Amino acid sequence: MLSSRIGILGGGQLGLMLLQAAVDWNLDIHVLDPDADAPCRNIAPHFTQGSLQDYDTVYEFGKTLDVITIEIEKVNVEALEALEKEGKRVYPQPSVIRLIQDKRVQKQFYRDHNLPTADFILTDNQEDVAQHTSFLPAFHKLGKDGYDGRGVQRLASEADLDKAFDQPGLLEEAVSFDKELAVIVARNASGQITTFPTVEMVFHPELNLVEYLFAPAEINEDIERKAQEIAKNTAEAFGIVGLLAVELFLTAEGKILINEVAPRPHNSGHHTIRANATSQYEQHWRAILNLPLGSTLAYGPSAMVNLLGEAGYEGPAVYEGMETLLATDEVFPFLYWKAITKPFRKMGHITIMDAGIDALKEKVEFVKKNIRVISKEIKQ
Amino acid sequence: MLSSRIGILGGGQLGLMLLQAAVDWNLDIHVLDPDADAPCRNIAPHFTQGSLQDYDTVYEFGKTLDVITIEIEKVNVEALEALEKEGKRVYPQPSVIRLIQDKRVQKQFYRDHNLPTADFILTDNQEDVAQHTSFLPAFHKLGKDGYDGRGVQRLASEADLDKAFDQPGLLEEAVSFDKELAVIVARNASGQITTFPTVEMVFHPELNLVEYLFAPAEINEDIERKAQEIAKNTAEAFGIVGLLAVELFLTAEGKILINEVAPRPHNSGHHTIRANATSQYEQHWRAILNLPLGSTLAYGPSAMVNLLGEAGYEGPAVYEGMETLLATDEVFPFLYWKAITKPFRKMGHITIMDAGIDALKEKVEFVKKNIRVISKEIKQ
Repeated sequence: MLSSRIGILGGGQLGLMLLQAAVDWNLDIHVLDPDADAPCRNIAPHFTQGSLQDYDTVYEFGKTLDVITIEIEKVNVEALEALEKEGKRVYPQPSVIRLIQDKRVQKQFYRDHNLPTADFILTDNQEDVAQHTSFLPAFHKLGKDGYDGRGVQRLASEADLDKAFDQPGLLEEAVSFDKELAVIVARNASGQITTFPTVEMVFHPELNLVEYLFAPAEINEDIERKAQEIAKNTAEAFGIVGLLAVELFLTAEGKILINEVAPRPHNSGHHTIRANATSQYEQHWRAILNLPLGSTLAYGPSAMVNLLGEAGYEGPAVYEGMETLLATDEVFPFLYWKAITKPFRKMGHITIMDAGIDALKEKVEFVKKNIRVISKEIKQ
Repeated sequence: MLSSRIGILGGGQLGLMLLQAAVDWNLDIHVLDPDADAPCRNIAPHFTQGSLQDYDTVYEFGKTLDVITIEIEKVNVEALEALEKEGKRVYPQPSVIRLIQDKRVQKQFYRDHNLPTADFILTDNQEDVAQHTSFLPAFHKLGKDGYDGRGVQRLASEADLDKAFDQPGLLEEAVSFDKELAVIVARNASGQITTFPTVEMVFHPELNLVEYLFAPAEINEDIERKAQEIAKNTAEAFGIVGLLAVELFLTAEGKILINEVAPRPHNSGHHTIRANATSQYEQHWRAILNLPLGSTLAYGPSAMVNLLGEAGYEGPAVYEGMETLLATDEVFPFLYWKAITKPFRKMGHITIMDAGIDALKEKVEFVKKNIRVISKEIKQ
């Protein structure tokens, strides 16, 4: 297994961290990404520049490999299906990627499998949305190609109908929730399954992006047990081989609802590199190479702050405050090899550990205050 | 500092782990090594094949860089001195490398600085050794170029005199010791200094190589305090910028003596990658880039087992038992990207953690029993 030729579709930061985890076991990794300056470029043993959405490019890339995986869902699934048919091990399975790529199919899947999720109505176009004004307020979500806040619109009332997408989508009940949680599940081909402790995500007030998270989440044991169970059941329902990041809403009434899932390493698991015996990245390799899954034991409470490009700056990135961070115990910056910063671009993250929760939260505030990704060039 | 162009002389496993630690901060690393298939080759952003001992090669390599460091002492010091004179930051300093390269000068340095070390006599050749038979039993050590057990001979009595080296060396009292300890010190250019907790090394019965180690060492507080103090004093006496690994003997009477030192990351610090808040590799970067040094806090007891090529095998390496290891919680194999195994070649190491010391020691035995580096080709 360890001598397989392995391909990753996508060479962004998730690919980079997968690569880093692969070094220890001398895995032979090949990366495909459309960007010649992708984060993986500098340390990938083999890098191919090419489209992830073009059938021929993905097929040719995978043809010479034994195992193919992804770090982004937006890939040519037909090519992956063809490779799978030829006996390549493609994990997560193309059928799972296809199902998750379309939020409409994904939501219907939860309903069909009795997995808890917010109520919804499938819509074909804007006109169709207009038939369901009694369902408002609701979120209107695009079926395909939504990402990091794109493809989601809040429709408060009939007056917002012009904001609805004129493409296949879904209206989702605007659930009032107390917390957003996430559980990363790993499942290998033998069916072994593990979960990481539940994390609590705090979203950026304006952007639909995780601003920071805490692990473990501040929830009671009963909620923790339920969150873990729902996440496991979801991974088992999909029959996924690999990682499944399950994002959850915790309502004021203590109900847990599945928000969405990602069939790959996820922003909500970056902290595991430092804080847990096995990181989500190593766990991904174990799962798709059908190796025994590793312990998800946490060595202590941790937090993770996303490092976003500062608003108003675009150009060669400058990391202001790195020395201040490095002077603080157990503050671990990870930068993503992105030469150019843009407003709110994910440029890195900072993992923070501490023996005590209060000290940890203080460090989070300290970190947020003391680091900025700017550029000498001001955005016009 | 983080945008410096950095060179490492040497691309072996220590260089590989330095590279891995550099990825998180996007450090721009250039590696020089004579072997086109050196462990660093696959992941080094920039790799130059060339001699570490040739003046011109080292000088040309360093000329275009800002900071130059080493992962092996056997390098052309004259070239490093020239680069230093031209304003390059060369750490550890060439003067320190020169001093440590010659065991005779190193031992004399301890004596001159009142640093505790086993008694010794400098010898010029075999004939000179014959003048000092009253000093036997003793170890005869070559002044230069000893490494991993080479360049050391035990002379029990006059009858062994023909085993003495006919080159400049030293006769060192054969100290009877209870334990071998090691402390890794880091010192940055501003003079900030930190130490890692003292480790206890267990040597291979035949080879002069660490077979495994435990951290923390099983010693009382007083010994721990003394070991840490001697290690710090040694680093300060050298005035080194970078890491200094200080190997110590603990005698039956509770005396601590300096055995030898290495001015770089060291085998006795591999476990820090997994077990400590800051690894020795990250600490090396902090020290030589004059950044604040990191916390050396250990998250729990740990052990490290060197993975040596099995006797009797030479050829393409096969790692027998990896899946068994990966099925055990908190057992972390690191392989060194060496295609060819040879008897006793360092092929990797395994870090082991556990909350309890007894469980940890059981895991060490389990690991030693269950992994072998062999080859399908039998050594003739």
